[in-house]
Amino acid sequence: MRAVVWNAREDVEVTDVPRPDPGPGQVLVQVAYNGICGTDLHEYYGGPIFIPTEPHPLTGRCAPVVLGHEFSGTVVEVGRGVDALAVGDRITVEPTYWCGECAPCRAGKTNICTKVGFHGLSIDGGMAEYTVIDQGMAHRLPDSVSLQLGALVEPMSVAYHAARLGNVDGDGTALVFGAGPIGIGLWHALKGQGVEDVLVVEPSPVRRASIERLGAQTLDPTGVDVPGYVAERTKGLGAAAAFDAAGVKPAVEAALASLGPSKTMVSVAIYERPIETSLIQLVLREARIQGTLCYTSSDYRAVIDLMAGGHYDTTGWVESIAIGDILAEGFEALHEGRKMKVLVDPSA
Amino acid sequence: MRAVVWNAREDVEVTDVPRPDPGPGQVLVQVAYNGICGTDLHEYYGGPIFIPTEPHPLTGRCAPVVLGHEFSGTVVEVGRGVDALAVGDRITVEPTYWCGECAPCRAGKTNICTKVGFHGLSIDGGMAEYTVIDQGMAHRLPDSVSLQLGALVEPMSVAYHAARLGNVDGDGTALVFGAGPIGIGLWHALKGQGVEDVLVVEPSPVRRASIERLGAQTLDPTGVDVPGYVAERTKGLGAAAAFDAAGVKPAVEAALASLGPSKTMVSVAIYERPIETSLIQLVLREARIQGTLCYTSSDYRAVIDLMAGGHYDTTGWVESIAIGDILAEGFEALHEGRKMKVLVDPSA
Repeated sequence: MRAVVWNAREDVEVTDVPRPDPGPGQVLVQVAYNGICGTDLHEYYGGPIFIPTEPHPLTGRCAPVVLGHEFSGTVVEVGRGVDALAVGDRITVEPTYWCGECAPCRAGKTNICTKVGFHGLSIDGGMAEYTVIDQGMAHRLPDSVSLQLGALVEPMSVAYHAARLGNVDGDGTALVFGAGPIGIGLWHALKGQGVEDVLVVEPSPVRRASIERLGAQTLDPTGVDVPGYVAERTKGLGAAAAFDAAGVKPAVEAALASLGPSKTMVSVAIYERPIETSLIQLVLREARIQGTLCYTSSDYRAVIDLMAGGHYDTTGWVESIAIGDILAEGFEALHEGRKMKVLVDPSA
Repeated sequence: MRAVVWNAREDVEVTDVPRPDPGPGQVLVQVAYNGICGTDLHEYYGGPIFIPTEPHPLTGRCAPVVLGHEFSGTVVEVGRGVDALAVGDRITVEPTYWCGECAPCRAGKTNICTKVGFHGLSIDGGMAEYTVIDQGMAHRLPDSVSLQLGALVEPMSVAYHAARLGNVDGDGTALVFGAGPIGIGLWHALKGQGVEDVLVVEPSPVRRASIERLGAQTLDPTGVDVPGYVAERTKGLGAAAAFDAAGVKPAVEAALASLGPSKTMVSVAIYERPIETSLIQLVLREARIQGTLCYTSSDYRAVIDLMAGGHYDTTGWVESIAIGDILAEGFEALHEGRKMKVLVDPSA
């Protein structure tokens, strides 16, 4: 079968690998779509970051590995003892492996398991015609959720989890910095969580136009004083939460300066280096910066429910490519900012 | 009566001012001790910061003002309608004014009232022989709490409030960065809240020796790799909370690198400028930085209760001076780091 294999930094190839067999408790999935994540780009251009170079403590595997942790597909074979899934089930996959024994796992925070691993980074993943998963990793898709949407459940769950950590009061104004896929996911998640007033701050006119087509209200930080605008709009209350999905200093600065007393800025970016941060803003308003990582199963279920209700819209920001085009039309197009979200179709 | 009057930056004088009269609902307090706060130093060397130059919205007053917001004393006269206090009562004073109407006030967070004012900054304060307060600002001192300790309730409540925001699990290891008065207050507060394992990180040998005399365990960050030490001590769990009462980059860096998953670094410093902050540390562990400001009445009551139980120890870090010596033996000695905590005795 064809698969996208990460061998080393800047050495990713589409090649033939043996089709895996499902072991006890596992199922074989025929992959429909697999999204390319920012993490995959980081692994390609700057890795290994999450890809293990020594056997991973939970999966026992290390590079080379098949990439792909955002995917949907159909169950085509079940292993011994599988009782939760059947051949023909349309599923999306929650790709995390956790130990179940560390302090975060015992507290139900499996997303920050001290040994956390990922299908498609710590073991062969979904950028292939087939992949094998443990049955517990599958979430069945309702009929009204397409396999294309199913491949977006993972990044949308990252954003949904981040949105929850913002603790936004439904009456308040939420600010989202950055209108990439996570920013779009935050906008959908906040709306889905009942927050009426969400402003998306994005300097790129292309990205602003893209999220405006979905119905979002945007601000151009190169032309508007964001904290001043928010202060006026909220009658001095300040933002009920701010989300940094941009990862750059001007976003962090404006987010902290816009926050209301006792409110939260959620960091959902991969910061490549430390950022000068005005901690005095936190002190004077008793505000906080909250980091967020991944999701738990409840986030997955919530996103799938919202998708089933027609809540997510992929117009204008999601496209599919054939697996053979992954370098030119996938990694490079994303790296150069020519595309926003790319789903790989392994059968094309 | 004699009083310490702030006229302008670097223009503070000990001078005679009229003794105030208590209005309805107010009492006249004969001040026993009034501590010099870091805020007073900032007002002297770099103000006005909190001192209003136009009438304050809650007090109607602006500079020149009598300084002093950390004080204890005895009620010597009561105004009309005073029912909660009587002449002879020994008290400490919660010096904040709040509006009661803004969103934080309505949520019980009077410490971050959008109009917050302070007795001794926004109106004449306690660095004087007498001062007038609203009866609701007084907390009666139990017999076992000295007037000297009473003057320390304010800064100890700042630290107690910060300690609460750390949400430390009693079994965990807490890290306090900085062994100045707030660091000492944090150590006392955390111990008082049942946290057994508190490590105080402080580069100054003098300050380390000072807090060690109270019973604290210290770390010298110039000789010890703090995150490595904490990882080993906690068997990889990381710190259950970290408190930055130092306000410098190495402290913030070591605090974030030491935190366990999902844990909190509390910022209780006055940061003079933005600090390069490794936000990726927050993301990867879903950790947070929490700002903290002042206290509410419940913190005051908790500190007074702990003081009544003999929990606070002033050995070696607190001294009193006569009001006439405030510049040389107060501001300058503190500014040069020759003293740690100075209480002004207006009667001496």
